[in-house]
Amino acid sequence: MKLELTPVPGFPLIKPGDDLAEIIINTCEKAQIGIQDGDIFVLAQKIVSKSEGRLVNLNDVAVTEDAVNLAEKTGKDPRIVALVLSESRKVLRYRTNVLIVEHKLGFVCANAGIDHSNVHGMKGNPDDWMLLLPVDPDGSADKIRTKIEARKGVRIGIMIIDSHGRAWRNGTLGTVIGLSGVPGLVDLRGQPDLFGFKLKITQVAAGDELAAGASLVMGQAAEGTPVVHARGFPYALREASLNELIRPEQEDLFR
Amino acid sequence: MKLELTPVPGFPLIKPGDDLAEIIINTCEKAQIGIQDGDIFVLAQKIVSKSEGRLVNLNDVAVTEDAVNLAEKTGKDPRIVALVLSESRKVLRYRTNVLIVEHKLGFVCANAGIDHSNVHGMKGNPDDWMLLLPVDPDGSADKIRTKIEARKGVRIGIMIIDSHGRAWRNGTLGTVIGLSGVPGLVDLRGQPDLFGFKLKITQVAAGDELAAGASLVMGQAAEGTPVVHARGFPYALREASLNELIRPEQEDLFR
Repeated sequence: MKLELTPVPGFPLIKPGDDLAEIIINTCEKAQIGIQDGDIFVLAQKIVSKSEGRLVNLNDVAVTEDAVNLAEKTGKDPRIVALVLSESRKVLRYRTNVLIVEHKLGFVCANAGIDHSNVHGMKGNPDDWMLLLPVDPDGSADKIRTKIEARKGVRIGIMIIDSHGRAWRNGTLGTVIGLSGVPGLVDLRGQPDLFGFKLKITQVAAGDELAAGASLVMGQAAEGTPVVHARGFPYALREASLNELIRPEQEDLFR
Repeated sequence: MKLELTPVPGFPLIKPGDDLAEIIINTCEKAQIGIQDGDIFVLAQKIVSKSEGRLVNLNDVAVTEDAVNLAEKTGKDPRIVALVLSESRKVLRYRTNVLIVEHKLGFVCANAGIDHSNVHGMKGNPDDWMLLLPVDPDGSADKIRTKIEARKGVRIGIMIIDSHGRAWRNGTLGTVIGLSGVPGLVDLRGQPDLFGFKLKITQVAAGDELAAGASLVMGQAAEGTPVVHARGFPYALREASLNELIRPEQEDLFR
């Protein structure tokens, strides 16, 4: 019944081409963290993006007229704005230093999840290297999961998370951007409570609840703990995709 | 470093007038859950509201003209709409069966957090009894905390949470509606990451991250585990209030 969220200690810095499944297995072994049926690994987006080489140098970005206009309105570097636009379906809102967009992957987030890369050993000025989100985070999660499951002979789940702001409330929350084998939504429709009332709240964002809890122990400052091992997730694992967590625009009262 | 979220087993059904601090202490003792410095108890809103007698019978509700109009537009019971309006500052959006409001307490939520009470032993038709949110959830959390701290000689935190929907994404998330002694927001401004970049994300909604994780193990259907014991919260406990988690309307791009 207890949920245990353990940041995996001793995780190495990730470089393009690194095999995250291997590294997770090896780092858990060194840390004496067993991998059992039902366990879930929650991964910071940055290490997945880095391993996949999703790096762009700002000096290689073609700046569009739209980007120049939005850069003037937001005070952002027009090359960064151009990158954000190229990763987005549409801009929902903007203000100084922030663009709130609908990302090509479907979710709403600030600046299309693009950040400075912090990858060591790249050419030129390190400030010029930006890190984009994975092209297909569900697919990335799936590959890592398949490899760990095959190597360890277990049934696990993988989630890739990022820190997202939200409407109405201050502060960021760890939020799912890709998953494999973990239910994003859990449908409690029709389950009676103790007095036989049918539950009104039908869908719990179980994946995002786990993402938020894992984010808490992952921390923000260092990249030393980009992987959290979760044991005790209270719902059955199943095949899933990010889409179940995304509210379609036509059903969204705030887009 | 590990975060452990344990639903407290054997929690009794709560009635108006019950002393939650006493019940938490006794139930933890029976369950052999120790209470240590730094521990946090996460409480479902329903038990706090019930213990405070926040029950209203729909037959006692005065229906206003605004309520009748909104009831027609949403298909809701006009008496429930009147209750929602009386608990809210303003209605932000509505559609069939849902009113999204800014609650008097400052946060945005559906139907002002009002639900069927599920309290046993009330007069008349149990379907007529509704449960409102606590009048002052920070104050409620504070009272419970003070009593447990005095009885056990420890420094702890208390959070009261509810299941909130959100913009852009499907499903509900456990979300703080009141707290005492736990930071809602953690400011990481100025903390360098591994390569010396200043962190851009300055504020983490640590309280809401814990609320979401705790909600996961609290479950939705039964009221058997309305209290979660959290050990390993990674930030220092401090005095706090719900207000730090509420984005002021003038800074909110989505209200």
